[in-house]
Amino acid sequence: MTAFHKATKIILVVERLLRDKVLAIVETEGAKGYTVTEGIGKGEHGLHGTDRPGIAPGFTIVRIEVIVAGRAAAERIALTVSQRYFTDHPGIVYMSEVEVLRPEKF
Amino acid sequence: MTAFHKATKIILVVERLLRDKVLAIVETEGAKGYTVTEGIGKGEHGLHGTDRPGIAPGFTIVRIEVIVAGRAAAERIALTVSQRYFTDHPGIVYMSEVEVLRPEKF
Amino acid sequence: MTAFHKATKIILVVERLLRDKVLAIVETEGAKGYTVTEGIGKGEHGLHGTDRPGIAPGFTIVRIEVIVAGRAAAERIALTVSQRYFTDHPGIVYMSEVEVLRPEKF
Repeated sequence: MTAFHKATKIILVVERLLRDKVLAIVETEGAKGYTVTEGIGKGEHGLHGTDRPGIAPGFTIVRIEVIVAGRAAAERIALTVSQRYFTDHPGIVYMSEVEVLRPEKF
Repeated sequence: MTAFHKATKIILVVERLLRDKVLAIVETEGAKGYTVTEGIGKGEHGLHGTDRPGIAPGFTIVRIEVIVAGRAAAERIALTVSQRYFTDHPGIVYMSEVEVLRPEKF
Repeated sequence: MTAFHKATKIILVVERLLRDKVLAIVETEGAKGYTVTEGIGKGEHGLHGTDRPGIAPGFTIVRIEVIVAGRAAAERIALTVSQRYFTDHPGIVYMSEVEVLRPEKF
């Protein structure tokens, strides 16, 4: 019997100035923890959906990694951050399936 | 014919002070390399298994990323680090499937 | 109806001095953005394919994370960087499947 259990990882790459606001959403929506690293990012601005001005200049970002046991919480986090911030700020969110050892920690 | 081969990624997020001890396990259990980034983390303390005092304050962490060709080595790394350190220290480990180009490097 | 769409993530871990050259390939091959974090890495040198001198000493690396909507672009990025740099420099590349919210951004 394997000790590993399925869980969902969400990665949020956002401007550094949004870090604390995004982490507040992460916790409100049910995550018990997160990992934050800093870096630089480049990407399209999400302005106005269909408005695609091309590649933005590099900006200082935080990469926030969150694991949740339930897929529903992952989707809430991804959708809430995206709807609240990614029309006016650059940023991306994506999810993937992972395996964890102790699901009650997540 | 694709040049890509399945492999297993292990992510270990641990307190910075444990870095070298955890990397020693990673190498002993058969990994040929790793990538380490620094950041901050927040999560439950793993103290005493069922003792769950809630979210710990942020702490300085290292995020260790390891790719191994064999699933068995990945499980050994995850289980050994977890059993040795995650009852007395905060930290998480999780695994996922990836594809690599040259499996003999891992 | 889910708002999430499949995409491919490529992770490139390369020596810091190669960062801008690798990012140029990433953009040339069709990626619209990337995330870069810094760290340390350890791994085999990729010298001469079958020449395996064991674990190299730690070196300063960048970890480049790229999401593309199409698998073909992911494979081009992985193969081009690998063929151009990983015979003479340490480094790894791997891919995995993720889910994104707005596929037109990638």
